[in-house]
Amino acid sequence: MKVVSYKLKNKPGNYRVGFLLDEEVADMQEAWRNLMLSRGEKTSPNAIDQFLPAEPAAFFSIGESAMHKAKEAYEYIMDNKVKTVYLTKEEIQLSTPIPNPSKIICIGKNYADHAAEMGGDIPEFPVLFSKFSNAIIGPEDSIEKSKATEKLDYEVELAVVIGKQASKVGQDEALDYIAGYTIGNDISARDLQKRTPQWLQGKTLDRSTPIGPWIVTSDEIDDPSNLKISSYVNGEKRQSSTTRQLIFDIPFLIEFISNLITLNPGDIILTGTPDGVGFAMDPPQFLQAGDVVTVEVEKIGRMENKVREA
Amino acid sequence: MKVVSYKLKNKPGNYRVGFLLDEEVADMQEAWRNLMLSRGEKTSPNAIDQFLPAEPAAFFSIGESAMHKAKEAYEYIMDNKVKTVYLTKEEIQLSTPIPNPSKIICIGKNYADHAAEMGGDIPEFPVLFSKFSNAIIGPEDSIEKSKATEKLDYEVELAVVIGKQASKVGQDEALDYIAGYTIGNDISARDLQKRTPQWLQGKTLDRSTPIGPWIVTSDEIDDPSNLKISSYVNGEKRQSSTTRQLIFDIPFLIEFISNLITLNPGDIILTGTPDGVGFAMDPPQFLQAGDVVTVEVEKIGRMENKVREA
Repeated sequence: MKVVSYKLKNKPGNYRVGFLLDEEVADMQEAWRNLMLSRGEKTSPNAIDQFLPAEPAAFFSIGESAMHKAKEAYEYIMDNKVKTVYLTKEEIQLSTPIPNPSKIICIGKNYADHAAEMGGDIPEFPVLFSKFSNAIIGPEDSIEKSKATEKLDYEVELAVVIGKQASKVGQDEALDYIAGYTIGNDISARDLQKRTPQWLQGKTLDRSTPIGPWIVTSDEIDDPSNLKISSYVNGEKRQSSTTRQLIFDIPFLIEFISNLITLNPGDIILTGTPDGVGFAMDPPQFLQAGDVVTVEVEKIGRMENKVREA
Repeated sequence: MKVVSYKLKNKPGNYRVGFLLDEEVADMQEAWRNLMLSRGEKTSPNAIDQFLPAEPAAFFSIGESAMHKAKEAYEYIMDNKVKTVYLTKEEIQLSTPIPNPSKIICIGKNYADHAAEMGGDIPEFPVLFSKFSNAIIGPEDSIEKSKATEKLDYEVELAVVIGKQASKVGQDEALDYIAGYTIGNDISARDLQKRTPQWLQGKTLDRSTPIGPWIVTSDEIDDPSNLKISSYVNGEKRQSSTTRQLIFDIPFLIEFISNLITLNPGDIILTGTPDGVGFAMDPPQFLQAGDVVTVEVEKIGRMENKVREA
């Protein structure tokens, strides 16, 4: 199941949770309403909002129980080919699935080749840093290049979305705490990132970081540590690797992080980027207004964002 | 005006916004209701919640308009000695004023003496890092010492609370964007902080970081760059300085940060700690279960938290 945040194109209104089908999008609450009707129960949007919120951030923050109901609704419309709840892709626009997670935890230097190209050793422990939600944009937004940087760079990453509260979780059960996966482009202003010992100021510029285009639920990805991952700038391949190359794989990261920090439903972990960033090219190549950056992860999809001056 | 987050002691119920008076606490919404009654208007809590929420996080996230109304209500009960809305300090317990800010931005090495004791140069640019809200506790909570650390340390800091959205704000108008001030104890697990190049994992352990005891509104502190600041462990003075020693003062920080990151009402900036941390003592002295850490900032107050095993 692919979960999107969508609204009708060029219309006022809030983004809502939907399901991405082959050529269409189905509204999640409408799907649930149809499922209930099939059981002879009438339900109002207000009532549904209590346990299955239309608002994406609220939906993901509930966690397991809401995701479970969403799957029921999805399976009902798929099995029964209920057509009244569908919108075509042309009618809608997509936003980032989770606009304001309580945490965005990023893992630095988590592919050996990237650690080497950035001039560092392979880390002994996962390197954690963060972004704030001011940075997040969606699949149809432009990456804003702040005037404060001349060295804007891309980093394709597999992003993990937490599905239930996780504290002191062991590796063997770690995947049970994942709601799904999406793609993050950990846009980094290298000049700002490196002018102090802490990277934060180069990592969380306003509207810089695409996360999307949707969330693929964890039941569709048995092994997140075996996915091809790549990025392109203006169609030229820049990064190409697989998540097998992760130094600290996803179960390890969840055990490591959850022993320090309680993770909440909707929290996002960006798991690190492989080699091939613009900073490490000879000569270095940074993003300019007008460039198009494409990021791709196997079994999730691709996301393309244009760069524009902020 | 001192704004607290309070509830009745040992009773179920949510924390609410209140005003700290000399010996008592007044409920903010009750104060507003009394003000309206004095004008012949009856109002319901639900109606008041729309513009003056009882819930502390919601109240601070609204920003200026809510703070303005809160001041009206406060002045009314003070001027008219309205006694029906008061609770004694014995009846209540306090929580951290803002439990889930959208950002907690910390400034590293912002006092020259502390930069030196930690073995670093004086920074050329403010060093930004972050905590997540999982770390925040209130003035009556215990600092939880995680089993993951053997080197837990204190850091008293002046904390700035943002009062209205701030993007690209100049130093000369920066103080207008501040709702008020409180105290942060930027508890740091030195072993975890220093085992990777990024400090985050040592800075945001669950329930480690006291912020409080209340917020003193900015109208009571003309010059935040001239406040005595100190900390004590088990009554022994460890840190003693003044915010005059800040390398980057508060107007500078707000200009610097808001040119990179849009600040929202309720966001918290921890402005850095002076020298005297346990890590830099000879031999180093770290916090143990049972220790009591007291932090104090002039014109704000003091906050005392016990350390306990997590």
